[in-house]
Amino acid sequence: MKLECTPIGTVHSPFPDPVGVPIQPSRSDGAEGTVEVLPEFEEGLADLNGFSHIVLVTWLHRSEGYRLRTVPFLDTEERGLFSTRSPRRPNPIGLSVVRLLGVKGCTLQVADLDLVDGTPVLDIKPYIQEFDERPEFRSGWLERSTVKRRTSD
Amino acid sequence: MKLECTPIGTVHSPFPDPVGVPIQPSRSDGAEGTVEVLPEFEEGLADLNGFSHIVLVTWLHRSEGYRLRTVPFLDTEERGLFSTRSPRRPNPIGLSVVRLLGVKGCTLQVADLDLVDGTPVLDIKPYIQEFDERPEFRSGWLERSTVKRRTSD
Repeated sequence: MKLECTPIGTVHSPFPDPVGVPIQPSRSDGAEGTVEVLPEFEEGLADLNGFSHIVLVTWLHRSEGYRLRTVPFLDTEERGLFSTRSPRRPNPIGLSVVRLLGVKGCTLQVADLDLVDGTPVLDIKPYIQEFDERPEFRSGWLERSTVKRRTSD
Repeated sequence: MKLECTPIGTVHSPFPDPVGVPIQPSRSDGAEGTVEVLPEFEEGLADLNGFSHIVLVTWLHRSEGYRLRTVPFLDTEERGLFSTRSPRRPNPIGLSVVRLLGVKGCTLQVADLDLVDGTPVLDIKPYIQEFDERPEFRSGWLERSTVKRRTSD
């Protein structure tokens, strides 16, 4: 079964290349940029302004291939791919919870970007605490990680 | 630009139909089920067992069409689609943070399901507090919502 996605917009970020891009929004030092939404979807951006954060669902277009075991950015051992947030996945779909600074027409001003310039956006969802947070959790291998790195290589 | 996804597995849930499905994992009363991952991806499930929650990125295959303004399940007024979590979206990609009860071979036992039986899974990511939570947030229109509903219609 093949499922087809169509971009609804594009990320404009300070990161021209995957090398050196922040590994996650929380390690981006607040990097700012925009999401340019295609005009035919502008009406769908109404009411977003009241949300402080949004989830960008993206197509990680610069991510090539994948291996089912990979050494994550935050570890020194190989781990099963689906227990990592590596960008190299069978379906290279990224999730980025970014800060929404403002909406003007088709342009979202955002901060905490961890995405390469030109990344296609598949969906935009409001960040909603009840739906996206789990106060009680365990983080497997990551609980023993002491790696402080902030960018990819 | 068309981007092609291929399912890596399938959700088996107690919900045969979109009508009556919980609107989100947090409102599912713990509904249990499984994710059957295709054998060629089994190796990628290694190390998942230590995580209490996973993010299922799914293709909402029973969701048909979309409107850019929609009345969300949790409101009585029309809102811009991208300020809602409505399943009817230009790219019907769902995010579900579910509880991981166990992994055995290609089968993930999960709880808090909000997905229709047979939903294709595009990706599995570990839930990681630093990456997925934002302690300070504003929730726009939702802050005034008093709707307590738990299932879709």
